[in-house]
Amino acid sequence: MVPASPSAARLNWIKNSVEYVRSNIQAMDGYTPGEQPQGGKFIKLNTNENPYPCSPKVKAAIGRVCQTGLQRYPDPAATAFRRQLCELLTGELPDISPEWILCGNGSDDILTIITRTFVDTGDVIRYPNPSYVLYKSLADIQGAEVDVANYQSDWSLPPEFSEPQDRLKLALLANPNSPSGTIVPAAAVAEIADALPCPLVVDEAYVDFADANCLALVAENEKIMVTRTLSKSYALAGLRFGYVVAQPQIISELAKVKDSYNCDALSIAGATAAIEDQAWLAENRAAILATRERLTNELRSLGFECVDSQANFVWCRHPRHDSAQLYRDLKSVGVLVRYMNYPHWGEGLRITVGTDDQIEAFLAILHPLLH
Amino acid sequence: MVPASPSAARLNWIKNSVEYVRSNIQAMDGYTPGEQPQGGKFIKLNTNENPYPCSPKVKAAIGRVCQTGLQRYPDPAATAFRRQLCELLTGELPDISPEWILCGNGSDDILTIITRTFVDTGDVIRYPNPSYVLYKSLADIQGAEVDVANYQSDWSLPPEFSEPQDRLKLALLANPNSPSGTIVPAAAVAEIADALPCPLVVDEAYVDFADANCLALVAENEKIMVTRTLSKSYALAGLRFGYVVAQPQIISELAKVKDSYNCDALSIAGATAAIEDQAWLAENRAAILATRERLTNELRSLGFECVDSQANFVWCRHPRHDSAQLYRDLKSVGVLVRYMNYPHWGEGLRITVGTDDQIEAFLAILHPLLH
Repeated sequence: MVPASPSAARLNWIKNSVEYVRSNIQAMDGYTPGEQPQGGKFIKLNTNENPYPCSPKVKAAIGRVCQTGLQRYPDPAATAFRRQLCELLTGELPDISPEWILCGNGSDDILTIITRTFVDTGDVIRYPNPSYVLYKSLADIQGAEVDVANYQSDWSLPPEFSEPQDRLKLALLANPNSPSGTIVPAAAVAEIADALPCPLVVDEAYVDFADANCLALVAENEKIMVTRTLSKSYALAGLRFGYVVAQPQIISELAKVKDSYNCDALSIAGATAAIEDQAWLAENRAAILATRERLTNELRSLGFECVDSQANFVWCRHPRHDSAQLYRDLKSVGVLVRYMNYPHWGEGLRITVGTDDQIEAFLAILHPLLH
Repeated sequence: MVPASPSAARLNWIKNSVEYVRSNIQAMDGYTPGEQPQGGKFIKLNTNENPYPCSPKVKAAIGRVCQTGLQRYPDPAATAFRRQLCELLTGELPDISPEWILCGNGSDDILTIITRTFVDTGDVIRYPNPSYVLYKSLADIQGAEVDVANYQSDWSLPPEFSEPQDRLKLALLANPNSPSGTIVPAAAVAEIADALPCPLVVDEAYVDFADANCLALVAENEKIMVTRTLSKSYALAGLRFGYVVAQPQIISELAKVKDSYNCDALSIAGATAAIEDQAWLAENRAAILATRERLTNELRSLGFECVDSQANFVWCRHPRHDSAQLYRDLKSVGVLVRYMNYPHWGEGLRITVGTDDQIEAFLAILHPLLH
């Protein structure tokens, strides 16, 4: 069985690897996250990060864990965070207890856990278009098929989003949606969940920048799972922490699928401190919303078509300028925005709400590009 | 479609949830990690944590990231760590470059990624018994079947471990093994990998406490993936950081399956600082090995049958005392060890090598329990 030489073995394996790697993995390209330059001076408005540093209480909590030491495994259930979150959410969801919450290594981890719990090879996942492009990757990795329903022109969901279908095992709805920043009202989400033959994830990654949310629906319909992240509104994209709220019988199934220690000791402590500091959140949110309004108005005055946003970004395109060209021109002078081109929908630019200074610099650079 | 009342909806869903959750997930119990008491004064010798605090350079690196801020997403490729690891491993694996390395949120994350890359619903995963009980959970979650080969009495692998089998897509070998602490020599691992019809994971979680490793085999056989963690030898179980070394064509497939930002900014910086401090590792390793020898000798003098360990724990049983009873008696007075009972194998106690003081206290408590 020993091959003649390492290079012979290598050639043999390259041939065989096509056979050994699951066909769905071979076929996929993999999810490409927004550019994350590790250095250089960019005005970074491409991945919906919060432009402000997190609450100083987060740093203090992380420092305390460092003092205690990192040699022990973390609490596999992230109990401290779940208890604190119950205090925060009990006004909107009086039934909530820690058994209604599962924590994850970012809400991407939560979405992965949910997919693996409900969706088998050959099953179907439904989501709208255009939306979070990760949903396609989750389906590809799981060997599932996708059923994509285009948003209507007013950014409401089409009737087919709610319709039964063979092998449909999970529906995903980013709400507020990316890239549009639009929101489907809770009453409409409740109707969709009732009609669907499968569980519905309401992905509320951006909900702290919106006027409403779907949390209360979790008590009324066990098919609804609300996922959230601390990456955006708590300025903790670097920490990786998210969670899902669902009824306890659902959480207990999801808990079987997560890695035992999926949240580290630093992120549990940091996330708990972050949600304790609601004064920080209120102040940060107010700043982002004020800049969002200013950015939207300025873009419109430059001729862009902008969607009213309930998130920390603005989706726009210019009737007389190519979005891809604008993206490249901006990048060449150190401004990163997100260029997106969705099949059966079209292209546009998604611009993260930065600081006032960043948005002013961005607009100053953008202006001459349009002439 | 709207149900008459929330409670009617609830009953309906509880019935339906059996239908919606994947049958393999419903059927499984979920992996139970070792007890992690969040408080209380235990002598904790049950989950193979390092008893000493990590290198002080780790804390400094984490502090620097906190100063820079956590609002940005981390480097999805953990480039700084991979470059540093190449410097560390190039003596053993001259071909290595960052393209040979994928980082994960602990090596559990790595094992999950590998399973999802190679194993589909209904496929077969092979591993020896007794070994890391997580392997069964990985198979259960993926909807795969398991093919378990019992170790021989000298802790070598039986011939059937290498034999072809229909639908066999992945073999897993903890080396050093848990709970035995024994090691399969690299030459034997090379032969097994050549004979197997599928990739082989060599799970080297404990390898820094051993006299040898299988890293060099990665250059010779593309079917071999070596996984490691910083949880044990670098005293960073709380940080969650692990990696796999494999040939680049394998790494590029695994990379499609990982969550984009599976390692957070703090853990990347902390892990990089940890492997930079090899003087710390050498000193810590020497302390653990000295205590391991002392613990083994003392247990044997108390009549225990102990396996010679190449890891940071000792597997033992007493010919005249029930292991489960000893576990309970020890726990009742504040000493946690790991009681394990493996199907088709039997039971025993796995005792983590603590500090000299912890081991002295443990032995002082153990002694009267035997009389």
